[in-house]
Amino acid sequence: MFFASDNGGPAAPEVIEAIARANEGVAMPYGADPIMDRVRDKIREVFEAPDAAVYLVATGTAANSIGLACLVQPWQTVYCHRHAHIEADECGAPEFYTGGSKLTLIDGEDGKIPPEVLRKAISETGAVGVHGVQKGALSLTNATESGTVYTPAEVSALTTIAKADGIPCHMDGARFANALVRLGCTPAELTWKAGIDILSFGGTKNGLLGVEAVILFDPDLAWEFELRRKRGGHLFSKHRFLSAQMEAYLTDDLWLELARKANNAADRLAKGILELPSASLTHPVEANAVFASWARKGHRKAQEQDAKYYHWPFDQSLEGPDDEPISARLVCNWATSNDEIDRFLALIS
Amino acid sequence: MFFASDNGGPAAPEVIEAIARANEGVAMPYGADPIMDRVRDKIREVFEAPDAAVYLVATGTAANSIGLACLVQPWQTVYCHRHAHIEADECGAPEFYTGGSKLTLIDGEDGKIPPEVLRKAISETGAVGVHGVQKGALSLTNATESGTVYTPAEVSALTTIAKADGIPCHMDGARFANALVRLGCTPAELTWKAGIDILSFGGTKNGLLGVEAVILFDPDLAWEFELRRKRGGHLFSKHRFLSAQMEAYLTDDLWLELARKANNAADRLAKGILELPSASLTHPVEANAVFASWARKGHRKAQEQDAKYYHWPFDQSLEGPDDEPISARLVCNWATSNDEIDRFLALIS
Amino acid sequence: MFFASDNGGPAAPEVIEAIARANEGVAMPYGADPIMDRVRDKIREVFEAPDAAVYLVATGTAANSIGLACLVQPWQTVYCHRHAHIEADECGAPEFYTGGSKLTLIDGEDGKIPPEVLRKAISETGAVGVHGVQKGALSLTNATESGTVYTPAEVSALTTIAKADGIPCHMDGARFANALVRLGCTPAELTWKAGIDILSFGGTKNGLLGVEAVILFDPDLAWEFELRRKRGGHLFSKHRFLSAQMEAYLTDDLWLELARKANNAADRLAKGILELPSASLTHPVEANAVFASWARKGHRKAQEQDAKYYHWPFDQSLEGPDDEPISARLVCNWATSNDEIDRFLALIS
Amino acid sequence: MFFASDNGGPAAPEVIEAIARANEGVAMPYGADPIMDRVRDKIREVFEAPDAAVYLVATGTAANSIGLACLVQPWQTVYCHRHAHIEADECGAPEFYTGGSKLTLIDGEDGKIPPEVLRKAISETGAVGVHGVQKGALSLTNATESGTVYTPAEVSALTTIAKADGIPCHMDGARFANALVRLGCTPAELTWKAGIDILSFGGTKNGLLGVEAVILFDPDLAWEFELRRKRGGHLFSKHRFLSAQMEAYLTDDLWLELARKANNAADRLAKGILELPSASLTHPVEANAVFASWARKGHRKAQEQDAKYYHWPFDQSLEGPDDEPISARLVCNWATSNDEIDRFLALIS
Repeated sequence: MFFASDNGGPAAPEVIEAIARANEGVAMPYGADPIMDRVRDKIREVFEAPDAAVYLVATGTAANSIGLACLVQPWQTVYCHRHAHIEADECGAPEFYTGGSKLTLIDGEDGKIPPEVLRKAISETGAVGVHGVQKGALSLTNATESGTVYTPAEVSALTTIAKADGIPCHMDGARFANALVRLGCTPAELTWKAGIDILSFGGTKNGLLGVEAVILFDPDLAWEFELRRKRGGHLFSKHRFLSAQMEAYLTDDLWLELARKANNAADRLAKGILELPSASLTHPVEANAVFASWARKGHRKAQEQDAKYYHWPFDQSLEGPDDEPISARLVCNWATSNDEIDRFLALIS
Repeated sequence: MFFASDNGGPAAPEVIEAIARANEGVAMPYGADPIMDRVRDKIREVFEAPDAAVYLVATGTAANSIGLACLVQPWQTVYCHRHAHIEADECGAPEFYTGGSKLTLIDGEDGKIPPEVLRKAISETGAVGVHGVQKGALSLTNATESGTVYTPAEVSALTTIAKADGIPCHMDGARFANALVRLGCTPAELTWKAGIDILSFGGTKNGLLGVEAVILFDPDLAWEFELRRKRGGHLFSKHRFLSAQMEAYLTDDLWLELARKANNAADRLAKGILELPSASLTHPVEANAVFASWARKGHRKAQEQDAKYYHWPFDQSLEGPDDEPISARLVCNWATSNDEIDRFLALIS
Repeated sequence: MFFASDNGGPAAPEVIEAIARANEGVAMPYGADPIMDRVRDKIREVFEAPDAAVYLVATGTAANSIGLACLVQPWQTVYCHRHAHIEADECGAPEFYTGGSKLTLIDGEDGKIPPEVLRKAISETGAVGVHGVQKGALSLTNATESGTVYTPAEVSALTTIAKADGIPCHMDGARFANALVRLGCTPAELTWKAGIDILSFGGTKNGLLGVEAVILFDPDLAWEFELRRKRGGHLFSKHRFLSAQMEAYLTDDLWLELARKANNAADRLAKGILELPSASLTHPVEANAVFASWARKGHRKAQEQDAKYYHWPFDQSLEGPDDEPISARLVCNWATSNDEIDRFLALIS
Repeated sequence: MFFASDNGGPAAPEVIEAIARANEGVAMPYGADPIMDRVRDKIREVFEAPDAAVYLVATGTAANSIGLACLVQPWQTVYCHRHAHIEADECGAPEFYTGGSKLTLIDGEDGKIPPEVLRKAISETGAVGVHGVQKGALSLTNATESGTVYTPAEVSALTTIAKADGIPCHMDGARFANALVRLGCTPAELTWKAGIDILSFGGTKNGLLGVEAVILFDPDLAWEFELRRKRGGHLFSKHRFLSAQMEAYLTDDLWLELARKANNAADRLAKGILELPSASLTHPVEANAVFASWARKGHRKAQEQDAKYYHWPFDQSLEGPDDEPISARLVCNWATSNDEIDRFLALIS
């Protein structure tokens, strides 16, 4: 029973097979492999973006940080949610890659940035001229760190505010596939058609070993991205093994199928939890994560059986009244089985 | 016929199999996988270094840059050969990771730093006090970028000079295995026993998909390394797939066997070239690369047949007298076959 | 009538004279001038800190940023008030000098950090291990940006919390003299005896042309500070002209006398404003700044006569009901005259 | 007898007076003072550059580093002479301000970059594509660190090579006035008409307390410069005191007169030295510095009398044969008197 994170799950078998297939003979290194040509074409097709520049890196932190560094100057700020991965979980990688930009943290329910709060934050930036940092970039996470999703209309509302001030827009799509299949819209509708300039298009949490694509809808930034990627140590010599993973991911809509499985698992898990007395959701379940609370005694039993998940927030104790609810984060991955979920539900009942 | 670089070759089948085997069930992310525990133990055993801190990253540039950043301050300089990878082929990654250190470039035959030149460079550093950059770290490449190797005694001679001034020592061992099997010494003799503090222990050029270990013989630097790795975006969530590659590499001395194959291929190739009229070696062949020159007409024929390799230096033209020699770099990998070599030799004759 | 900032005022005549006096013959550059020897001794005496390292720079931003860079690593965070100069008015200079540290912003009344909020912020730092930034330094501003002061006991309460977690403590003392004369304590009591490790000891806002001392009560950081100062371009060749200013400042307690004048001016101004109908203070007046509100019509008249000061917050309009109060910041300097204050008070009545 | 550096000399009396005059009443801070308006106009007039952006900082290192940072990206390189101040005497400040650019060091006689060597260095940059750093900026020092000058034609020859590759050009003019009065050309001819984009226009070594102007002939870079200046802590609040120095400098050609005095002193000194037996110049005397060698016994006598200057190179010993020549650097400033020179000459004879 593993719900600690979607990155604990396995890779899809199709991906392992693709790696094995790619391991034949020689291949030009550093992204000049023919598989990458096909990946680039396929991503442009999927995103209806024939001019987009497309690159692969191996971690989400690299994808986010290098992408953001192409959008902001060191003396500018990045607007993001207080709980965004770039703020909370990357050990300052954005500051490192941008050369010391600030992050302006925005509070909002369910991991989402409220338009009026963004507007205020932007309007306050630069009020003291050269003495303060300047308007930089907007970064949205979709699906969010709270397991919710922005609709295309919501994305658009935020990017419209940003772009009125000339602020470019980044999306951390580590769980982009989970958001997309929930929304039922097209990749284009959720990104460039809604004002996104650079997308970190996640694969690792959704069945790859370790590949994220960075899609620059504005190809003018391509050469800068390439230099920043190399300088960051993120240009792979045996690049074909990244390409092969991404090709398998995109073939026959595997990426969407994997995301659907993870989302369905989360739905099943949430449904089961809500049947418990005094249980409740702390965020709506819109992707592959469940944020919920239930009685302490259920937590005790789960953790005695070594079920893996996090209290959310962390600092809640197993000691205390049996029936007092404790809130938790449970993340499903594409391979989370109904059996695993049902065993967990049985435990916490 | 591919001699452009050892990074164009395939991964060893044992490595692909290990990845597939690692893909079962869940695993704790970020290096907490049990395979990594075994890898750490094995590397400590191989290097006779029970206290060493051991980490995995996916590229040589990351290994070198993060390691060096743990050894130098931004206002210090790194002594390295003018042709070192960290100077010539990493787009300034060391400067990026260190926060702007200088690299003091040292000239020397066959890619090797002469002790007296190092001594002079160190003695000149800091002569103007606070106005100049300060003594930082020494970085040696073994095998070198010219396909030669430093013996343990040669390494020791250089590190002794450095350490007399309190200068820590890094080794870029992207081709460490190739050096080691040529020398016939132990890993310990070529590293910490010879004064090396941090080793980039290469795997990618020698049969892995993309894994380098960083071995910190001084474990006091471990936590700083971990933070710098994370901040650089080089901490893998599905880390087990790095661990699995490295475990396969170290099992049954696979890493040494692969390096021997590549070195033997280079020997065969060099021997064949030297049989050509007016051919000569431009550097001794001591690892898996051949630096040699032969008549222009031989180059013409090879390149008509799409043989892949680089003129070295780059700017030599195929146009000119038939018999004039052109120098080139030819790199063999573990999978370079005798047949491939012999066909190439036939072409250039 | 100039209340826009204390940096708009003149230098003290004694300081100009000292510069003229220093301009005789040659002097060793870069801080090796004999005046600096006397300054160092004097500061050590004033602060009862015989081992402190003492350096001069020309701007408060340089003093703060270089000092902080000696205390934090790039992957750590600096705890400061949301309105601290280092956050709000230095265009990201701390991020630049530290190599990309974060600033953790703390809210609190009257520009002061509440102990319990600091404790919580510290305890939350590092909860996600290597994934988040680490505990770095505490930075207090005294007098604060809201014109209030921390007492030695208040400083000590905060530094005690920090030091329990090994966190070093910096004080931005751009208006240190104003705080000190209000409190009536000794310089030592307000700094190292209260747990401060590095002090930016301001002179520019209090009668110098442009000099701030940085006092490192821990002299182990001295050489690093010197290198960072040089590397930042803040080591002056004709350093004697900085030394001369600081010497004049410290002679015959000029610095305290100037600060008293500025504080007295603020008191007189505040007293006058409070006599107006519907006027009130928005922060207590404890240094040389008055934060107060009074009727809009008074603002209109003042600004018609070109009185210089800022609405605080900035975005309040002169258009609106006559009697509605608008809040403002008025800063006095050592040369602010009673006449100037009284004319201003007459205007706004 | 002080020939250690021109920065050991006093400020011109006119400059001290200007500071005293500027110290009246209040002035808007941060460069909004009316004196700065006049300085800007005057510099534009002197340089025949009505659109130039003009800023003041207090040190040459700041002027050079911030200017260069506006011209190069972190992944690019700056071409400069091996002995350039930015390489040898700024403790890596260019690397700090640019975010880690490299400096490509060019050797050449008498501190000057030979055109053919520059051309070769540029042509080699970028040969390995994304793997190496890219073409950045050219930085020339005029007068050079060897006391020689580039003519407008020589500057133009170098900038023409650079600009053929789109490389912008910076001039470190810490001793610009000394070069100019020697050459007898106009400021425009030696700068923008010869291809210079940004000039560090020195004042400190030539009679100011500490002011350098940065002149951006391309005003599009102005806002970036302002932000980088602030972020580096080099924006002065009481800016009028920088403005006043520069205004005095430019009034009645004071700057040219001071430079002429220093150059004349160097000429007198060189002439005297050359009259000694076995003395010789190690570089031509074209500005205010003399690089010469004379018998060891003369050095001994001078240093017994505490004459200040540097052996050049540093590592020559006073112990050895009496008549063996030792080479030295002697720098004159505007206040170096004939008497001082003659006493020195008498000593070393």
